[in-house]
Amino acid sequence: MSQKRTLPDPLTLIVFDFDGVFTDNKVYTAQDGSESVMCDRRDGLGVRMLKDEGIEMFILSMETNPVVEARARKLGLAVQQGCDDKAGFLAGYLQEHGIEPATVIYMGNDLNDLGAMKVSGYAVAPADAHPTVLEVADLVVAATGGNGAVRELCEFILKSRKTQ
Amino acid sequence: MSQKRTLPDPLTLIVFDFDGVFTDNKVYTAQDGSESVMCDRRDGLGVRMLKDEGIEMFILSMETNPVVEARARKLGLAVQQGCDDKAGFLAGYLQEHGIEPATVIYMGNDLNDLGAMKVSGYAVAPADAHPTVLEVADLVVAATGGNGAVRELCEFILKSRKTQ
Amino acid sequence: MSQKRTLPDPLTLIVFDFDGVFTDNKVYTAQDGSESVMCDRRDGLGVRMLKDEGIEMFILSMETNPVVEARARKLGLAVQQGCDDKAGFLAGYLQEHGIEPATVIYMGNDLNDLGAMKVSGYAVAPADAHPTVLEVADLVVAATGGNGAVRELCEFILKSRKTQ
Amino acid sequence: MSQKRTLPDPLTLIVFDFDGVFTDNKVYTAQDGSESVMCDRRDGLGVRMLKDEGIEMFILSMETNPVVEARARKLGLAVQQGCDDKAGFLAGYLQEHGIEPATVIYMGNDLNDLGAMKVSGYAVAPADAHPTVLEVADLVVAATGGNGAVRELCEFILKSRKTQ
Repeated sequence: MSQKRTLPDPLTLIVFDFDGVFTDNKVYTAQDGSESVMCDRRDGLGVRMLKDEGIEMFILSMETNPVVEARARKLGLAVQQGCDDKAGFLAGYLQEHGIEPATVIYMGNDLNDLGAMKVSGYAVAPADAHPTVLEVADLVVAATGGNGAVRELCEFILKSRKTQ
Repeated sequence: MSQKRTLPDPLTLIVFDFDGVFTDNKVYTAQDGSESVMCDRRDGLGVRMLKDEGIEMFILSMETNPVVEARARKLGLAVQQGCDDKAGFLAGYLQEHGIEPATVIYMGNDLNDLGAMKVSGYAVAPADAHPTVLEVADLVVAATGGNGAVRELCEFILKSRKTQ
Repeated sequence: MSQKRTLPDPLTLIVFDFDGVFTDNKVYTAQDGSESVMCDRRDGLGVRMLKDEGIEMFILSMETNPVVEARARKLGLAVQQGCDDKAGFLAGYLQEHGIEPATVIYMGNDLNDLGAMKVSGYAVAPADAHPTVLEVADLVVAATGGNGAVRELCEFILKSRKTQ
Repeated sequence: MSQKRTLPDPLTLIVFDFDGVFTDNKVYTAQDGSESVMCDRRDGLGVRMLKDEGIEMFILSMETNPVVEARARKLGLAVQQGCDDKAGFLAGYLQEHGIEPATVIYMGNDLNDLGAMKVSGYAVAPADAHPTVLEVADLVVAATGGNGAVRELCEFILKSRKTQ
């Protein structure tokens, strides 16, 4: 794990990209064009632990695909899909809900996450994110997307809360 | 393989967590929300070898998912699903069946297995279990979950029986 | 990345093999014989970036399988399937459309791509291509098939255009 | 690749185990209990090259599963399934067809292949076969099951034929 800045305090919201964060950025395409993705059960347990702490979270995805919704439902997370302009959506959301950007974590992995990373106060990336994303990120977890990257962030947040 | 204590003798029961033990802790989510998991044929052969020795085994899973039942059926193992309190269930099961905890192996990989690991006399973990689980385990096999971890335990048990 | 010759200039067309280029050359076979393949979201973003630059691209595949068509549709790429003689098809295509072979990139990974690699002016291979293909290729990207090989080529093309 | 003895000459038949040879020994279990397996397109091309040379081949599998049949059909190979006693079946087959065991290659990866390996004149194993199988094998290819192990054997056979 490589950390440039301390976590937001207070932390009011975590926004996750889906592909490459909850997955290894792969998609399984079947003959009928339907898609599947690989997720990690560890991440599910991590999300549950943060929910028990009362931390708000949702998923923001460029893809419009029922598979994102299916996994989000299992995780008990809200999801905003088909979002070509993630930065614009996120900026509007924060303003509408009166959320201070400095209290928001955004976790993403590819070039189309750069805007949202700037809008939020704290950017997190999995270890296998795009090189440009890794440069920009305030925190790069040791795990790769779909292989415990979300869980690692969850445990890091919980640990930092306990040591306060 | 890293072993802190010798195997239970006699050994009357092996209880397996499913995700992260029989699988690599991944889940494949399809558009309709249905899930698939990846298992290892080697483990199937290992379970069969232990059954031929007359060793009792079952699967104890927090997830309530037909995929666990489907794989358990193929392995010929009973399964207890949707078990949020694994430790409580296991303690009750052992008492009800008059099974001495010291003769029971529990194999699990994540934080929600810690309780059941304490209830049973002997805790086994795959090599890629959660760090806290690895610390607690009496035996950590060299293989990771879904990649022969169960088979390795099965062969280790069979080998230790032959050398007695 | 290992490069023997500079990229075609001008570049008018990129032809991609599918299996082993957009995928890791694996196929998931279900009980009913239907097939699925694993693709990389990064490649999808790369293809989109090249399309934004107006570069022509299509997929040329020996397999006749709806899964290739399904993925091509998602990528927004045309596809020529069931092509046992890729070299012959490609030569005819270039002649028919009056395309100079020296301005064409072909990306492939196995022995049945060698002919098409010679027909086109510039051959690209993923890092895990067949040894004979690696020898013939003008450019071998660092990434393996299905793990960002296409994306790496896309970014390399875009970068070379910007530095001109 | 590690070779103890030269290939059979003449070579009249190749018998393949399925799981762990054409696959990485994994099985994907869906909620309805249906199974999928991951195969390698390279192996398909290798099998095709051997068929062009007129070499007889079939698949011998302990599993009774339509997925084996589905993949075998795609490869154009005959398949004998549900074979609990592979050695007995193979011995009977060779006798019935008047095939000299010394001219037969068997490729397998686990303990239930040991018998058939002894019945045939030449045993081949993928690099990730069971340690006992690796000891017994006359040839261990460098590739693992489902990752080009079959293709490597095919190319090795073709190369040895050309150099004769």
